[in-house]
Amino acid sequence: MKRAGSHTHAVNPVNDAAATADANLQRAALIALDWGTTSLRAYLYDAAGEVLATRASPAGIMNLPLGAEHGGFDAAFEDACGAWLERAPAVPVIAAGMVGSAQGWVEAPYVDAPASADALVAGIVRVKAACGATLHIVPGVLQRGELPNVMRGEETQIFGALGQETGAVDSSRRTLIGLPGTHAKWAVVQAGRIERFHTFMTGEVFAALREHTILGRTMITPDRPDNEAFLRGVNIARDKGQAGMLATVFSARTLGLTGQLSREQQPDYLSGLLIGHELAGLEAVLAQQQNSLARQHLRLIGNEALCERYRVALAQFGCTHAELVKHATERGLWRVATQAGLVNPTPQAAHAG
Amino acid sequence: MKRAGSHTHAVNPVNDAAATADANLQRAALIALDWGTTSLRAYLYDAAGEVLATRASPAGIMNLPLGAEHGGFDAAFEDACGAWLERAPAVPVIAAGMVGSAQGWVEAPYVDAPASADALVAGIVRVKAACGATLHIVPGVLQRGELPNVMRGEETQIFGALGQETGAVDSSRRTLIGLPGTHAKWAVVQAGRIERFHTFMTGEVFAALREHTILGRTMITPDRPDNEAFLRGVNIARDKGQAGMLATVFSARTLGLTGQLSREQQPDYLSGLLIGHELAGLEAVLAQQQNSLARQHLRLIGNEALCERYRVALAQFGCTHAELVKHATERGLWRVATQAGLVNPTPQAAHAG
Repeated sequence: MKRAGSHTHAVNPVNDAAATADANLQRAALIALDWGTTSLRAYLYDAAGEVLATRASPAGIMNLPLGAEHGGFDAAFEDACGAWLERAPAVPVIAAGMVGSAQGWVEAPYVDAPASADALVAGIVRVKAACGATLHIVPGVLQRGELPNVMRGEETQIFGALGQETGAVDSSRRTLIGLPGTHAKWAVVQAGRIERFHTFMTGEVFAALREHTILGRTMITPDRPDNEAFLRGVNIARDKGQAGMLATVFSARTLGLTGQLSREQQPDYLSGLLIGHELAGLEAVLAQQQNSLARQHLRLIGNEALCERYRVALAQFGCTHAELVKHATERGLWRVATQAGLVNPTPQAAHAG
Repeated sequence: MKRAGSHTHAVNPVNDAAATADANLQRAALIALDWGTTSLRAYLYDAAGEVLATRASPAGIMNLPLGAEHGGFDAAFEDACGAWLERAPAVPVIAAGMVGSAQGWVEAPYVDAPASADALVAGIVRVKAACGATLHIVPGVLQRGELPNVMRGEETQIFGALGQETGAVDSSRRTLIGLPGTHAKWAVVQAGRIERFHTFMTGEVFAALREHTILGRTMITPDRPDNEAFLRGVNIARDKGQAGMLATVFSARTLGLTGQLSREQQPDYLSGLLIGHELAGLEAVLAQQQNSLARQHLRLIGNEALCERYRVALAQFGCTHAELVKHATERGLWRVATQAGLVNPTPQAAHAG
């Protein structure tokens, strides 16, 4: 195949794009994978930590096109990164997320909380792909106890968010980091370590209630999110939630039956109820430590629209300092790779990472 | 068709049974239907309130063989009670449950809580079946407020349980009645009225979590219920449930991941967690009224095995006086029919009802 980049002064956009891609591959310093249950996202970085290109595919570990037993991990990896590795075969590869679980490509056993970035690096497990590349798989974090907690992938995002800190004061202060989603995580981070964390199955429970209980039967998805209905749910959970979520969720139905909540309002009301119960639960845990949401300067990582919902909900609990951290995933992967010595960042990287 | 009952001294069991059925129909005084979402149960009573025969079918209002618009209610009613009505066409018919909802045969609008049996009687709505019989449909109960609550069918069961009271002291005392199930109800009853009640979607949420979330993926149904795993879940919800159900349920997975809960233990552990959260929620509501589960002499209505689980769970909350009330449904239907003047019970009925 003719190399597009060999043409100087390319006269059409296709050749321009190909030329750019080729120039990028000459600068490639790291490939990093965020490989979860239902999706795979790949990042190509230069030596300064700048993301040169990304690839996304639905080939999560439970969604491999071929199945794990038929080389499904190799095939998905090849599909996502094969073109990059063909031109830049020596580029190191790092991966985080469910790819390191017992159901993943190779198991990277959990490291115990409190966990530092160094502990993650020490727990990296390697697996050789059919194409010859070696993947460095970042372990998840386990918090032992009567109610154990686990994360895989979020630990890397958290270190990505911390990597943005510049002042020494900030890094020693205790920080609460929220990662809304299917299984929302709330982690307490101090002195560069994930001290402890909680999981709330908010996103998955919402989907199960909506799709598989009577509550969904009367719901209609509105054209755009109904913030008022959402807030109503949040405040019910906060002020009238004593009987617990199993009781309050029934009101999505009874408010409909009594003409107080339209079918279009019900989804956002239920979402508000669940997020409200999550935050009320977090508030109860903080209260045991003589703390409160109102006193937190916290950070949110994840889908922007969802994080914005959490910011709105947090404000109902008096927490008005909730900062959205962008690009935490790619920054975290870069940071762990750097700390593991997989890349030797050029000076600019200190800012980019 | 030859009447089996016309043979005296029947020589085979089939004729014996037919003769008995025929004798029953000559004594028939009331037909009552417990007609819910997924099932229909019919009872035939004599004038003393004794149940002579029952019929059960899966023809709940959301499960009609023909569909409501094609005469589905008539067909299901005919299928359940046609043979009875053919021989005893003048017998009155009463029905309670979702058959009186907006999706039912005819809507019997809710009566407001506090609700007495007299209020239920006053709210009865009649519908004429194709066969000529008139159904008397008992209304449900609505509790208005910021978190409205509704019941349909349970109000009749509750009056069935109250009907067994003999002493005046008992009937004036405030009693808590629990009806475990898909949508568990807890009603406060005093002076013969349903004062207020709560709904917990415990059964339906359990099914949704088990069938449609990651929690179910590692579960195996044990050969027999694991009481130890159940109690462990109850006690976690009671003692470590501050973060709420959205957080604790994740432990069904993490205890499995860390080898502390086998796949066979996970279903009963999750069941214990949810029932524990329900009772913790009820306890929190009682605490607002300077009351507690430990101080209750309460009654349970419903499936015996499920009520037994609740008795075990209630004991963990210090409540050791939880009496299972049997036959509350048929007793309640009889009681409302009597109070409505549909039947004139013979003296024995005072004991039977």
